[in-house]
Amino acid sequence: MRREITGFSNPLLKEVRSLREKKHRKRAGLFLAEGLRIMTEAREAGFLPQMLFRVKDREVHALEIALETDVLANGGDVIETSAEIMAKLSGKDNAQTVVGIYRDHATALRDVRREDAPIWLVAQAMRDPGNLGTMLRTGDAVGAGGLILIDDCTDPFSVEAVRASMGAIFTQKVVQCRWDEFITWLREGRGQLVGTSLQTEADYQTASYEAPCFILTGNEAQGLPAEYEGQCDLLVKMPMRGKADSLNAAVATAVMAYEVLNQFRRV
Amino acid sequence: MRREITGFSNPLLKEVRSLREKKHRKRAGLFLAEGLRIMTEAREAGFLPQMLFRVKDREVHALEIALETDVLANGGDVIETSAEIMAKLSGKDNAQTVVGIYRDHATALRDVRREDAPIWLVAQAMRDPGNLGTMLRTGDAVGAGGLILIDDCTDPFSVEAVRASMGAIFTQKVVQCRWDEFITWLREGRGQLVGTSLQTEADYQTASYEAPCFILTGNEAQGLPAEYEGQCDLLVKMPMRGKADSLNAAVATAVMAYEVLNQFRRV
Repeated sequence: MRREITGFSNPLLKEVRSLREKKHRKRAGLFLAEGLRIMTEAREAGFLPQMLFRVKDREVHALEIALETDVLANGGDVIETSAEIMAKLSGKDNAQTVVGIYRDHATALRDVRREDAPIWLVAQAMRDPGNLGTMLRTGDAVGAGGLILIDDCTDPFSVEAVRASMGAIFTQKVVQCRWDEFITWLREGRGQLVGTSLQTEADYQTASYEAPCFILTGNEAQGLPAEYEGQCDLLVKMPMRGKADSLNAAVATAVMAYEVLNQFRRV
Repeated sequence: MRREITGFSNPLLKEVRSLREKKHRKRAGLFLAEGLRIMTEAREAGFLPQMLFRVKDREVHALEIALETDVLANGGDVIETSAEIMAKLSGKDNAQTVVGIYRDHATALRDVRREDAPIWLVAQAMRDPGNLGTMLRTGDAVGAGGLILIDDCTDPFSVEAVRASMGAIFTQKVVQCRWDEFITWLREGRGQLVGTSLQTEADYQTASYEAPCFILTGNEAQGLPAEYEGQCDLLVKMPMRGKADSLNAAVATAVMAYEVLNQFRRV
């Protein structure tokens, strides 16, 4: 249905704003995605928002018209509002002109079909939403199946993570589980678990990767726990020529993932 | 000199807080780096803060004692304060216990010795401080000489960029210049300019890189201007297996930089 919100005190606005907080996302089973680019990625991946907020009275891109048409056909709401209300909704001055409310779509580990993709990314206790979103985006680029989040990771459905994913939150499967669940599931079938570590001399380019390859990256500050490293099939190290001996976690994942992809595409 | 600040109204605090804004950094020629890890990287690279702020009355790491000793021996100030004042200084609840004020140390393009390193990173109109800092960190890891910032990039000496660099702001040369200055300087000597682009079919792994190799990455949203691409010696593309056909700019730079490093270390 198409309708309009003209007042700042409309209770729906408060509800939407509350989705910036994890507890409200969990309660509602909903999350926010902002901007036409990400919402178009979502649409192409088969996800439409339950509600689409848009700033009225401006030039409209053809992709936005297509998006609105699909939302209405799907029984969703298109809600027109002013630029001022949209800015309040998004908490930013240079707000997007379209914002969507989507149903949370995490995948259960038991529903992951590992043979569907040659690469899967696994993040352990990742704290930074930008890193998580960037890993999703990298996963999309290398043709990974999804991102498996182990232990206490930041919420992949936060506004910051969704933004950094550039839409990959809709194209990659997102799984959240504990380490023991993951490792039990992994060992029930094929799958090579590869950890990046400073505790090894094995060069990441001389190692041999096998699909489905699960690339495991640890917490930004601590890296992987020793006990998790001990359960990897392979521990590898990227060359470090600098003073600091470390890379950003999302960068390290991407460098690994491209090495694995490069080996697979040589076959 | 060692001294103490006990009051929130001390004018020095206002001055230090002002360094969170670019215009004040420019005016003072100073910037902030927070935390013992980054400040230790700085010290090992030969940079000491003019002022070191520290929270008093707590357990102190040996590296902090070494740092303070060096600051005092170098004629700098060690300023003791309370956790509350430090929180106000850093604008965060979980503030670091040490913060340093350093002299801005950008390098002029004419002072760059290109033969000192096999890889140099070049960023054009990069807007995100996290990306810039991450690129510095990656540069350190691959043994790059520094990061050359072209056109209107975000300030590499911002608190966010310094934090994301994890200390590489002190180990990498940082240059800021316009495109025409850069390209004129580049062509006065050896140097292969490599751009990543979606406008080419040349695979980044089949290309042949030559030191000193300048890896050029464009703005997060627009990529490189066509005229800049036209002046590259090589345009290459990473494989994209996903829906979105894009990578985070700092990730793309890192994947490229590791490919170049991998080729160089095979020789």
